[in-house]
Amino acid sequence: MIVLRRLLGDVLRQQRMRQGRTLRQVSGDARVSLGYISEIERGQKEASSEMLAALCGALDVPLSAVLREVSDLLALEEATQSAGEGRRLTLAAEPVALPIGSDRSGEVVAAA
Amino acid sequence: MIVLRRLLGDVLRQQRMRQGRTLRQVSGDARVSLGYISEIERGQKEASSEMLAALCGALDVPLSAVLREVSDLLALEEATQSAGEGRRLTLAAEPVALPIGSDRSGEVVAAA
Repeated sequence: MIVLRRLLGDVLRQQRMRQGRTLRQVSGDARVSLGYISEIERGQKEASSEMLAALCGALDVPLSAVLREVSDLLALEEATQSAGEGRRLTLAAEPVALPIGSDRSGEVVAAA
Repeated sequence: MIVLRRLLGDVLRQQRMRQGRTLRQVSGDARVSLGYISEIERGQKEASSEMLAALCGALDVPLSAVLREVSDLLALEEATQSAGEGRRLTLAAEPVALPIGSDRSGEVVAAA
C-alpha cells in the first residue's frame, strides 16, 4: 500500500532542503519539536492539520502547493501500482485452462 | 486558519453523496466504523494515511484525486484569505502619518 504520510514527509523534507534549512531552524520557526518534525519527514508520524499548517508557515510555502506535489507523486505511484497489478493479472490468466465448449468461458476470460 | 481536515472531510462527503451511498454502506466496504467516518467527514477527526486509503478504496476513487480536489479548494481559500489580509493591511496603512522629510518613508509605504 502507498502510504500518504511517507510521500508527505518526502515533500516536506525536499522543500526544507531546497531552502538549505536545518531541522533546528524550521523547528524554531514552526514552534514544533525537532524530533516531531524529523518523524514527520521520515513518514513515521501523521501530521495533524494544525501541525502541517505550522510547518508550511515556517517553510513559507502554501499548504495547497505541498498537497498538490503529494497528489502528483501519489498519482505516479498509483499508476505504477495498477500497471503492476495488470501484469500480475495477465500472467495469472495465461495458464488458466478453460473447459472446452463451456458457454461461460468468454465471461471467465473477460473477468481475468 | 484554514483547517485541512475540514476540507478533506468535505471532499470525502461530496464524493460519497455523488455516488448516492450512505455512511453505513461506505463503513461496511471500508471496514471502518460509521461514527469514525462521520467524524472525518465533519472535519472533527484527523484521518490516518491507512484510514484515508481504506475510505478511498471503498469509494473507488484514487487518493491522489481526492488530494488534488482538496489542494484546489485550499488554494482558493488561501487566495481569499491573503486577499483579506491585503485589504486589512491597506486600511491600516492609510491613517499612518509619515514623518515629513524622512528618507525612509518610501520604504515604509512599500512595506505596508
